[in-house]
Amino acid sequence: MTIGIGLLGLGTVGAGVAQILATPRGRHPLVGELALRRVAVRDLQRARPIELPSDLLTTDAEAVVDDPAVEIVVEVMGGLEPARSLILRAIAVGKPVVTANKAVIARYGEEIAAAAAARGVYVLIEAAVGGGIPIIEPLKQSLGANRISRVSGIINGTTNYILSRMADEGAAYTEVLADAQRLGYAEADPAADVQGGDAADKIAILAALAYGGSITRSAIPTQGIDRLDARDVAYADQLGYGVKLLAVAEQVATTAEGVAELDVSVNPTLVPRDHPLAGVHGVNNAILVEGDPVGRVMFYGPGAGAGPTASAVVADILNIAGIRQVSALGTPEQPVPLDPLLAAGSWRPCRLVDSAQTRHRNYVRLRTSDQAGVIGRIGTCFGDAGVSLQSIVQFQAPTDSEGGEAEIVVITHEVQEACFRQAMAAIEALPVVASVAACLRTL
Amino acid sequence: MTIGIGLLGLGTVGAGVAQILATPRGRHPLVGELALRRVAVRDLQRARPIELPSDLLTTDAEAVVDDPAVEIVVEVMGGLEPARSLILRAIAVGKPVVTANKAVIARYGEEIAAAAAARGVYVLIEAAVGGGIPIIEPLKQSLGANRISRVSGIINGTTNYILSRMADEGAAYTEVLADAQRLGYAEADPAADVQGGDAADKIAILAALAYGGSITRSAIPTQGIDRLDARDVAYADQLGYGVKLLAVAEQVATTAEGVAELDVSVNPTLVPRDHPLAGVHGVNNAILVEGDPVGRVMFYGPGAGAGPTASAVVADILNIAGIRQVSALGTPEQPVPLDPLLAAGSWRPCRLVDSAQTRHRNYVRLRTSDQAGVIGRIGTCFGDAGVSLQSIVQFQAPTDSEGGEAEIVVITHEVQEACFRQAMAAIEALPVVASVAACLRTL
Repeated sequence: MTIGIGLLGLGTVGAGVAQILATPRGRHPLVGELALRRVAVRDLQRARPIELPSDLLTTDAEAVVDDPAVEIVVEVMGGLEPARSLILRAIAVGKPVVTANKAVIARYGEEIAAAAAARGVYVLIEAAVGGGIPIIEPLKQSLGANRISRVSGIINGTTNYILSRMADEGAAYTEVLADAQRLGYAEADPAADVQGGDAADKIAILAALAYGGSITRSAIPTQGIDRLDARDVAYADQLGYGVKLLAVAEQVATTAEGVAELDVSVNPTLVPRDHPLAGVHGVNNAILVEGDPVGRVMFYGPGAGAGPTASAVVADILNIAGIRQVSALGTPEQPVPLDPLLAAGSWRPCRLVDSAQTRHRNYVRLRTSDQAGVIGRIGTCFGDAGVSLQSIVQFQAPTDSEGGEAEIVVITHEVQEACFRQAMAAIEALPVVASVAACLRTL
Repeated sequence: MTIGIGLLGLGTVGAGVAQILATPRGRHPLVGELALRRVAVRDLQRARPIELPSDLLTTDAEAVVDDPAVEIVVEVMGGLEPARSLILRAIAVGKPVVTANKAVIARYGEEIAAAAAARGVYVLIEAAVGGGIPIIEPLKQSLGANRISRVSGIINGTTNYILSRMADEGAAYTEVLADAQRLGYAEADPAADVQGGDAADKIAILAALAYGGSITRSAIPTQGIDRLDARDVAYADQLGYGVKLLAVAEQVATTAEGVAELDVSVNPTLVPRDHPLAGVHGVNNAILVEGDPVGRVMFYGPGAGAGPTASAVVADILNIAGIRQVSALGTPEQPVPLDPLLAAGSWRPCRLVDSAQTRHRNYVRLRTSDQAGVIGRIGTCFGDAGVSLQSIVQFQAPTDSEGGEAEIVVITHEVQEACFRQAMAAIEALPVVASVAACLRTL
């Protein structure tokens, strides 16, 4: 039994998928039953890492979706359009879809899921988050017994690479970014990675699966690493922390109507050195899931790259192929019902809470006058707002600062964001405080 | 639609499962469709952590399996018999089975899988390895695109707890074991844990899934931690390693006939401090899977305990419930075919290679005379056998040793086991060598 695959895109990931399909030996035997039928590319002439028969290639992506020999549509072209329209087109003609496109799923996931449910086809997205790390499938199929309290992760490899090198070398952000671009670890336009948008896309997807409802992507408070100062990485290290770009989705309450209230955000965050996420270096990703009764489980591995991402894409293809015999039992009038775990539909409303009501630990670096009593005044501002502190430490002022300046680093206990903001407003107004130089989260 | 569950066993794990089923709110909505119909216990009078209607309980386990209201049989009683017979009985009457019983699956997995395939029912085993960590499902459903080269893991929580405390406190094995028994982290009879048998059961199961064939459990070379000396933990630490009980399954070759040749073993092993498995402490487990093209992915979490294990058991129940509507489309004459990924049948023969032909790095501690030239003679023995060394270090002799004794610790490069044994035989025959005090693996 052969299953026809149509590939939309033959970039890094697409070529990785074609490579796996071309070399089935030693992989699960189902891989040998997958046959690449049609591949949509932008430019027929371009040199590619894998050689395919030229009659497989076409520039007409819709023709790939519509080709009767194509039974599963695999979208690895990226970008919002035409990817979204092609996914919807495949669903409309009753073909299951595999996609690695986190941007489309994070923004149009609800529309796509509704169309897929109505038509009775699967849309699988393992490769959209965490590259080769199995995380979507475990969230859908292995952790359903749990009440998930928190999903937190390092889910952008580019920023983790930059942060790892900043920490190891004490280097400045702009320097490391330039080097990462030269080495191919960061894109020419790095905005989506370094400003946190890519991580926000991914945490929106993970939160939707973990909490069973759709998340408004545009409402996720997102802070990137593009304004991170090497001093803060160095101070964090001295205080026993590493700095990571963390994407976090935490359930803070359930309303009487059963709505899950979530705190979802992306922030550069101080992670204690003995925390499982602190040991995740370079382009690796890791996702920590906390739930009742499982406790804490973590998934770790390569978060990007042709091979890992292709591994995840083919996993999804295999899952669809594995239940294909079953689906074939249905008729257009009486389709076989979808497995609700694999289909992963919404099962409760979710909403993001007002960020002022959320609770976090915070790291603050202040530039102040170097005079007696400053720490007391700052401490009083925090105390007046009900913000209790874990530590307040004076560091040597940077060499480029004005004479008579000091640097004060504060780490708070877990406090309500509204109280923290109130304290910060009071501190900024203090004549002895020159500026709030940095404000990060702390785990 | 309600799905009837029959529970065999109401110990720690069974009570954990009943607890989840009794409190569906906030979990996946499918949990709410599961109804506990019958529970087999050994003693009706015993006090239990969860209160159940007394008419659910029975001492007749076969009656639970046979009860028409029971649609899924959940075996959490442990032990080889009657667990094996009850699993086979459930299969024979066409009921899917969920089991947490690694001992039964490691020994009778092939018999059970054959019966299940013939009858067209699923037998799911997520809880048999790694407690709450999703590892069985990812191996079956998320990594099938890969050629797996190596599965290695810390998969026994009791020994990892003991080793963590030996490392932290410099304490002796027997002391820590006694304390672990007092605290409930080790059983009164700790043999299965500390001698490595439990880890061997689990690696047999993981290897069978990763490589697609059945593994002869009794042929797995197994060394536990019961003869581990605190000195070796201390020396390893000084050399930059932690000591972990590692279970490893590595593919060393594929024969012309397509047989996967495997090196599967359980050994106390020195793990470099920057290796992902080195950071796994206490009763946590972690499994590292290496494959092409995914690279290295790791799964980490609580390896035992009522909650985590029950999370895994209920995950399996949910998976069966999720495809139940589909299975219901079949008839006794024309059953719905099983999903080959979820059913995870064998797809190629596997065999363990002769351990003399395997390759490893080794750690050796020797007690020798404290005289000039000893290191040279030992080095020569290794060299003559073709064993190249990474380091050879003389440590201060232990205070309980004879006067004039020294301790020499050797770490080899990766060498063939046969050569290593030849070198060790020559070294033992040296008059200056009093004894081979320890012989461990090194990653």
